[in-house]
Amino acid sequence: MAVGPATLPSMYSVDGIRIGVASAGIKKPGRKDVVVFEVCEDASVAGVFTKNAFCAAPVVISKDHLAQGNVRYFLINTGNANAGTGKQGLADAYECCDLLAAEVGLTRTAVLPFSTGVIGEPLPVAKIAAAIPQAVENLSAYQWEAAASGIMTTDTRPKGATKQIEIDGQTVTISGISKGAGMIMPNMATMLGFIGTDAAVEPQLLQEILTDAANKSFNRITIDGDTSTNDSCMLIATGRSGAIVSSSDTEALNLFVEAINEVMLEIALAIVKDGEGATKLVTVSVESAGTQEEALKTAYTVAHSPLVKTALFASDPNWGRILAAVGRAGIENFDLETLKIYLDDVCIVENGGRAASYTEDAGQAVMNQENILIRIVLNRGDVNETVWTTDLSHEYVTINADYRS
Amino acid sequence: MAVGPATLPSMYSVDGIRIGVASAGIKKPGRKDVVVFEVCEDASVAGVFTKNAFCAAPVVISKDHLAQGNVRYFLINTGNANAGTGKQGLADAYECCDLLAAEVGLTRTAVLPFSTGVIGEPLPVAKIAAAIPQAVENLSAYQWEAAASGIMTTDTRPKGATKQIEIDGQTVTISGISKGAGMIMPNMATMLGFIGTDAAVEPQLLQEILTDAANKSFNRITIDGDTSTNDSCMLIATGRSGAIVSSSDTEALNLFVEAINEVMLEIALAIVKDGEGATKLVTVSVESAGTQEEALKTAYTVAHSPLVKTALFASDPNWGRILAAVGRAGIENFDLETLKIYLDDVCIVENGGRAASYTEDAGQAVMNQENILIRIVLNRGDVNETVWTTDLSHEYVTINADYRS
Repeated sequence: MAVGPATLPSMYSVDGIRIGVASAGIKKPGRKDVVVFEVCEDASVAGVFTKNAFCAAPVVISKDHLAQGNVRYFLINTGNANAGTGKQGLADAYECCDLLAAEVGLTRTAVLPFSTGVIGEPLPVAKIAAAIPQAVENLSAYQWEAAASGIMTTDTRPKGATKQIEIDGQTVTISGISKGAGMIMPNMATMLGFIGTDAAVEPQLLQEILTDAANKSFNRITIDGDTSTNDSCMLIATGRSGAIVSSSDTEALNLFVEAINEVMLEIALAIVKDGEGATKLVTVSVESAGTQEEALKTAYTVAHSPLVKTALFASDPNWGRILAAVGRAGIENFDLETLKIYLDDVCIVENGGRAASYTEDAGQAVMNQENILIRIVLNRGDVNETVWTTDLSHEYVTINADYRS
Repeated sequence: MAVGPATLPSMYSVDGIRIGVASAGIKKPGRKDVVVFEVCEDASVAGVFTKNAFCAAPVVISKDHLAQGNVRYFLINTGNANAGTGKQGLADAYECCDLLAAEVGLTRTAVLPFSTGVIGEPLPVAKIAAAIPQAVENLSAYQWEAAASGIMTTDTRPKGATKQIEIDGQTVTISGISKGAGMIMPNMATMLGFIGTDAAVEPQLLQEILTDAANKSFNRITIDGDTSTNDSCMLIATGRSGAIVSSSDTEALNLFVEAINEVMLEIALAIVKDGEGATKLVTVSVESAGTQEEALKTAYTVAHSPLVKTALFASDPNWGRILAAVGRAGIENFDLETLKIYLDDVCIVENGGRAASYTEDAGQAVMNQENILIRIVLNRGDVNETVWTTDLSHEYVTINADYRS
């Protein structure tokens, strides 16, 4: 089950990035499960990673190698997350980096490893080792779609977004792919995002742009509140278009940031729409909060409430559950009289209770939609925040209660 | 569905408390849906209430009347929560208080109102008005079981616990009833607890004892993280046994506190076992935390994780989900190497990964049980906290996705 049509756009290639895919047979024979990104020399690379205290081995290594600069390759495998694997997991991930580095004549710090799949199982290094030469051999600029499929685990569809903009008369391309929403059987899956652009951006600025964009996209989507040990999102800027993005050219910077934000939001929302058992895409928008903290607290409390989510699944305009979720979000000195809650444009709560103008028919009409906006207007300040989530369906329970096998 | 046998004990009556039940036909004709507690003069009454910013009208009034002292009656109705009802809801609740007060020749502040059921619907005052004289007429010391049934909403079984202890050669009785776990269709239900004892306890000490006991029972159970607008727990001490509990007699105080804690934990756990769609009773125990806050944060993150809960439903010893939930609980400077996680006595995580001694068979054996203990040993300090929860089943989704009708 997933929300909306499954449309992977025809992806623009990004000059300076080549992609190779291969079958290692990690979980299923014949499936493309190893993806290699090759990044041209002098490219900038930025990354954001899971905040889970239990980082998987590849996350620990990717953070370290990224900090050392000079990244040239990403090595991504699905089918095994190499998480909860202790010291052996680190050794295995280093070995994979070494294998790819040797294949291309570099040292291990040039390689960032990414793994997604089962946790707690040893990484099948021999299988990956056999696949690396295949992937390197077929490196090409035109495999973004193949990569979008190659990084899938239990995703039901590949996810990508692609865009071209003009900066100072130059065409700048941005392409991105993502995978894996929610925590997925057999153990948990991972949100991975890989975005490339041929703009030239200094590493520090690129990191700021990525961190900010992730905070408006990957860090604002939630299926079930669980975060994986492996979540990572990477942004590569090759500079090959000749267009330069820097803080001294505000107009170019703004154009670029806007485009990056759009691509990242699109691939992040694709993850939500393909969330486990999802039948609805739900936008929870909190307006005029006093602080960002209270805006996010309110939004997430609503977005994570099993009662709100089951009501969304049932297309039940059960406004009392939304009201109760807002009420327990922990906002201090909350004046209920000023709160308003809307389903799309239908006011459901005002003056501390059900809106006088509210009718069940109007609420029902919104709830029947596949895309639903819950707007919570706090009237306490000028901070707005939006998060995106799904409903909670029988299929979610079925998927996650299935025994690992 | 519910966990364990449905056993309402034969309840001891509590000298100084009489209970009346009546049918107002609020939701279903003929169902007992109004319960009146009568408290003797000079009794002490203590109460704890929901922390949801949206208190239902009866909660607002009960808090106020309790603070004024001199409480003589509780008026409890099911079928309608009188929540999200604005000013009319307050007026309706006051009118009900006035009606009962007039029936017994007192003023409204002697009455505490409690409501549970649908939110956002006007309280059917006329129906309750007609039921009040019936309830007053059949007031008797021997209706604790009838009251346990009379306060049910979608509970599948009445809940009560009863106990007698000796204090200074006197027999002291403690009886308590509770209702309603999780947030229940049609909107949300309420945790209500009513406990009575014939010990003599000054109001302030009684309040301290209740607050502390609630923190170890009602405030440590969670089905889905949602808290109702109506949750309330009341403790009455009539003094009729002649036994005096005061802070100057530590031995008597400890005996009494222990017995109150036992009764409250028993009726709180009865709520969890009857949680929506519950097939397991899950104890999440966090040991040797640095602070109470981190202990509770860890325990609730695990207890609320949909992934942990669906694994519990599936009897799947999916230790990676527990590990990931602990990892995202937000503990600062967390040394993974010192963490240990157990399922009952089976160590599943140590040294930052799956325990070397762990076998799937051993984990499976624990997961097959109806009662499961998840022990998380942080080794950061000396604070221990325990919360209780259930699994997340298909029936939970079915119950909560059913349209209100």
